[in-house]
Amino acid sequence: MSADDCIFCKIAAGQIPATRIYEDEAVLVFLDIGPISDGHTLVIPKRHFERLHDCPAELLGQISSRLGKMAGAVSAAMNCDGYNLLCNNGRAAGQIVEHLHFHIIPRNVGDGLLNRWPSYTYKQEKMEAIAGKIRQNL
Amino acid sequence: MSADDCIFCKIAAGQIPATRIYEDEAVLVFLDIGPISDGHTLVIPKRHFERLHDCPAELLGQISSRLGKMAGAVSAAMNCDGYNLLCNNGRAAGQIVEHLHFHIIPRNVGDGLLNRWPSYTYKQEKMEAIAGKIRQNL
Repeated sequence: MSADDCIFCKIAAGQIPATRIYEDEAVLVFLDIGPISDGHTLVIPKRHFERLHDCPAELLGQISSRLGKMAGAVSAAMNCDGYNLLCNNGRAAGQIVEHLHFHIIPRNVGDGLLNRWPSYTYKQEKMEAIAGKIRQNL
Repeated sequence: MSADDCIFCKIAAGQIPATRIYEDEAVLVFLDIGPISDGHTLVIPKRHFERLHDCPAELLGQISSRLGKMAGAVSAAMNCDGYNLLCNNGRAAGQIVEHLHFHIIPRNVGDGLLNRWPSYTYKQEKMEAIAGKIRQNL
């Protein structure tokens, strides 16, 4: 998807309305229109990037430096028990809008959200092999 | 939990082993010992903070500026269809170790991870009220 067709670029440009919470030169923060809990908030860079790894390190740092303050405000406003910061990259990971965005999702005990977490253990050998492969790709 | 009892502080200090991928002055990156997919990676600040909103903005920016490169390397190494960046804050949100950490979770089509996402819509009035409350807490 090009930036021209991107709904979040249009929101950032004020061409499509959103329930805005905060805005500065780098980011726009607004409520997710299809929340999974009350106060579910999106933080987006104003510039168009599709995925986390497409965003240059310095700009990613600038954008992300806002996340703690935003999460604290969402958490305080909603008086929730906790929250997730979630950034889905790729359709397989649940990314619908192909403009980098961070979900802040208020959570309460027993709400059952995002709860498919089937953890397992590796054999040591496999673990070393995977780590080696990731290191090679750094 | 104090930093003295923190397993991630002990890993960062080299007192407990981990399958390390990357390290610099600000962050340590290692494989999750209880992955939900092969290549499931953790990025942690070396300094102890419990939650995202406990970390000062500048340091959070510094830590987060590494996330794109790490996610890109995990994604390339695992040749996956996508990935999630996830930071759980509070037990209600799935945080087990009370030291700020970012999960990078490789995803593939149909893997069914984290898939409880029961989205809904607000009435406009409620949406405005929630946004106002969050703004007041910024």
